[in-house]
Amino acid sequence: MSEVIATYLIHDPSHNLAKKAEGIALGLTIGSWTDLPQLEQEQLKKHKGQVISIEELPKSESVNHYLGKDVTRGILKIGYPSANFSGDLPAILTTVFGKLSLDGEIRLVDLEFSDEVKENFPGPKYGLQGIREKLGVYNRPLVMSIFKGVIGRDLTYLKEQLKEQALGGVDIVKDDEILFENPLTPFEQRIVAGKQVLEEVFAETGHRTLYAVNISGRTFELKDKARKAVELGADLLLFNVFAYGLDVLQSLAEDPEITIPIMAHPAVSGTVTPSEFYGITNQLLLGKLLRYAGADLVLFPSPYGSVALDRDVTLGIAEELTKLDDQFKTAFPVPSAGIHPGLVPLLIQDFGNDSIINAGGGVHGHPDGAVGGGMAFRAAVDAVLAGKTLKEAAEDNENLGKAISLWGVVEVKS
Amino acid sequence: MSEVIATYLIHDPSHNLAKKAEGIALGLTIGSWTDLPQLEQEQLKKHKGQVISIEELPKSESVNHYLGKDVTRGILKIGYPSANFSGDLPAILTTVFGKLSLDGEIRLVDLEFSDEVKENFPGPKYGLQGIREKLGVYNRPLVMSIFKGVIGRDLTYLKEQLKEQALGGVDIVKDDEILFENPLTPFEQRIVAGKQVLEEVFAETGHRTLYAVNISGRTFELKDKARKAVELGADLLLFNVFAYGLDVLQSLAEDPEITIPIMAHPAVSGTVTPSEFYGITNQLLLGKLLRYAGADLVLFPSPYGSVALDRDVTLGIAEELTKLDDQFKTAFPVPSAGIHPGLVPLLIQDFGNDSIINAGGGVHGHPDGAVGGGMAFRAAVDAVLAGKTLKEAAEDNENLGKAISLWGVVEVKS
Repeated sequence: MSEVIATYLIHDPSHNLAKKAEGIALGLTIGSWTDLPQLEQEQLKKHKGQVISIEELPKSESVNHYLGKDVTRGILKIGYPSANFSGDLPAILTTVFGKLSLDGEIRLVDLEFSDEVKENFPGPKYGLQGIREKLGVYNRPLVMSIFKGVIGRDLTYLKEQLKEQALGGVDIVKDDEILFENPLTPFEQRIVAGKQVLEEVFAETGHRTLYAVNISGRTFELKDKARKAVELGADLLLFNVFAYGLDVLQSLAEDPEITIPIMAHPAVSGTVTPSEFYGITNQLLLGKLLRYAGADLVLFPSPYGSVALDRDVTLGIAEELTKLDDQFKTAFPVPSAGIHPGLVPLLIQDFGNDSIINAGGGVHGHPDGAVGGGMAFRAAVDAVLAGKTLKEAAEDNENLGKAISLWGVVEVKS
Repeated sequence: MSEVIATYLIHDPSHNLAKKAEGIALGLTIGSWTDLPQLEQEQLKKHKGQVISIEELPKSESVNHYLGKDVTRGILKIGYPSANFSGDLPAILTTVFGKLSLDGEIRLVDLEFSDEVKENFPGPKYGLQGIREKLGVYNRPLVMSIFKGVIGRDLTYLKEQLKEQALGGVDIVKDDEILFENPLTPFEQRIVAGKQVLEEVFAETGHRTLYAVNISGRTFELKDKARKAVELGADLLLFNVFAYGLDVLQSLAEDPEITIPIMAHPAVSGTVTPSEFYGITNQLLLGKLLRYAGADLVLFPSPYGSVALDRDVTLGIAEELTKLDDQFKTAFPVPSAGIHPGLVPLLIQDFGNDSIINAGGGVHGHPDGAVGGGMAFRAAVDAVLAGKTLKEAAEDNENLGKAISLWGVVEVKS
C-alpha cells in the first residue's frame, strides 16, 4: 500500500494509548468511522489511517515530575494512505504532524515512505560520490573549513582568507552562514573572486579546493540566483534550508539548470529538534528529510564541542545520510563545531571515511594561521589512514605538532 | 539605529549571563572585538552586535531538577545592526536564531524591528477592517466554520456541506487544512463550485458567506495557483504557512495580482512553539511574524479545548495581531478548537469584538446539523451584544437552546 508511516513519541495523561492512536489515525484522515453507513465505509476505506503498532515505554519519574502530571509514554506508529495527500513535503508534514504537533507532549520520531511516495523526491543530485568525483578524492574523509569574521569585511579580505584556507590543503571552504547579500562582498562577486583565487592556488599547488557560496534572500528569487551562480562557475551552494522550508531545498535540487551540489546548513533547526517532548528528531529532520529533499552535504553539530548533540544522535543523522537506498544517492555527513586536528582519530572512528571533517576555529586558530591549520588537519587524516598515532605523525609534521600542542589529542580506544 | 533586537530566555549552566550575552552579540556578528586593531574596530563598529539588557530570573527548582544541572535563567536582549543582513525573514532568523537555536536551552521570546527594517514587510493586505468591508459586518465578532470529514468525498458532498454551513449564517467557511490537491475535489473546481453555492445562498437569504480555499502543493507553484484562484473568484486563501516558510507567505501577500486575503493556519507550528526551553514563542511566531509577513487572519489554538494554549499566550497572540502599528494593518485573531456556542460570552470577553469565533464540531455537531449550529452561534453573538445571557436568549431561539442543552454555557464573571 502506498503510504507514509509516522512514528510518534507521546506522553498520554489519559493512560489510553490505544484510544489515542485510534483518535490520531481517524482524526487526521477521514474523521469518523464507526458512525458511518456501510456504503460510506467502503468508499472511504482507502483513505482511512491505520494504527500500525503501539508500544508502551517505561514510566519516567523525571518526566512526570517536570510535567507535573502522570503520563504514559508510548511509541505509536500510524499509517497514512498516500491517497490523502499530494506528493510534496508540506502536504505530508501537514497531514502527519500539522494539527497534531499542537496536541500536547508529542514528538515526531520518524517517517517511513513507501517506494511510490519516495518517487516524489529527488534525493541528492551529486551525493557523496559525486562530490568525491568533483575533487578526485576517494579514499579519505574530506577536510572543510569556514570563513570567519567576514561581516563588514571587503572582497580583498575574503580573497586573502580564502587563499590561506586553500593553501592549507582543505577540500572545501564554506561561506559563513550569516553572510548575506551585502554591498562589500556581493554574492556574484564572491563567486567570481573565489573562483579566481582557487584557480590560482590550483595553478600554484595542484590542489583543488571548492567554495560553497551562501545562497540567500527572498524565496522566489533563489532559483534565478542559483542559476546565475552556476553560470558564474560556482562550485557548491550553501543553503540555510530551515530558514526557508524543505520544499524550497527540494525545488533547488530538482532544477535541471542548477547543476551544482547543495550543502544544507542546520541554522534555525534548533527551534524544532532539541526537546524530549516536542518537535522532530534530528535523525528525521537533518538526516532522512534533507537527503530525500536533495541535500548533497549536511552540516550538523558534532558531539564534541560546546554546541553539541549526543553522539548517538549524530551517528543516527550520519546513518540516515549514508545508508544504502535503492532510490537515493548517499549524502556527506559534516559533523561541525568544536573540531580541531586532535579530534581526527575520533571523528574517523565515529563517522568513517565517508564524512567531512569541518572546522572554523580549529583551522584559523592554528599558530601558523589557516595555512598551518589546514595542513595540520590533512596530516592528521593521513596519519590515521596510515595507522599512526597523531603524536607519531607530529614528529615529522610541524603543523600537526603545533596543533596538538595547542589543542591536545583525544585518544581513541580501538 | 536600524536594527533588530532579539529577546532570549536562556538557561546558563556557567552562571555568567554577562559573558553569555557578550558572546552572542559578538559571535553572531563580527566574531571578535577586543583583539582587533583600532582601525578595524572603527571599520566594524556599525556591524557589532550590542548587549541591550540582561535580566536574571529567579531560579526554578523544577527546571534544575529536570535538566539535571543547576542553571541561571535570564532574559537577554541583543541588538543586531541591520547592516548585517538583507531585509528578509530568512536572513533575520538565521542571524538572530540560526546557530544560536542549537546552543543549549535557549528560546527566542521576541524580536523588535526598527521602523526601517519593518519597511521590508508588507503586513496584511486587507487586514481586519478589509475583511469586515468584504462582508459588510462591522459591529460583531465574525463567525466561521470548518469543513469536516471531507477526505475521500466528492464535490457534491462538499457543496452540500458548504451550503448547510452558509445557511447557518456563518461569515466564513474554511477548508480542512488537510485537504490537498486531489482528483475528487480539485482546487479550481472547489473554488468554482463553492462560489456557485454561496451565490445561491446569498440570492436565497441575502447572507454573504466567504469561502477560504486551501492553497497547497509545491512552493514555486503557489503564486500561479493563487493568481488562478483570484481569477476564478476565490474569496480567501487558507495557507499552512509553517509547512512552507514565513517568507513564502510574505511573497504571496506582496504579490499585487493576489488580490484576496490570506488566512494563516498554525499546522506544524507546534514543532517550534511549545517548549519552555527551546523554539520560538507563540506571540512572536503566530502573532507578530505572521502579521508582518502579511496574514490577514490567523488561526491558533484557543485556551478552551483539548488542543489548547494557555489563556495568556492566546491573548498575547491576539494582542500582537490587533495592536495599533503605524506601518501595518491589524489582522483577525481566530482562536480555534473546542469552541461551542456556550463559549461565546467568554470568547467575546477574552478576545473582544475584533475576533473570529471559529468552530468545527461546535457547528456540525448541533442536533440540527450545521444549519442549526451556525444559527446557534449567531444567536449567541447577538445575545452577548444585546447584554443578554445565553439562557435568556435561548428562550426565544430554539437553535441556541438545543446547543446549550448539549454543550452547556460557560458563565462569565463581569
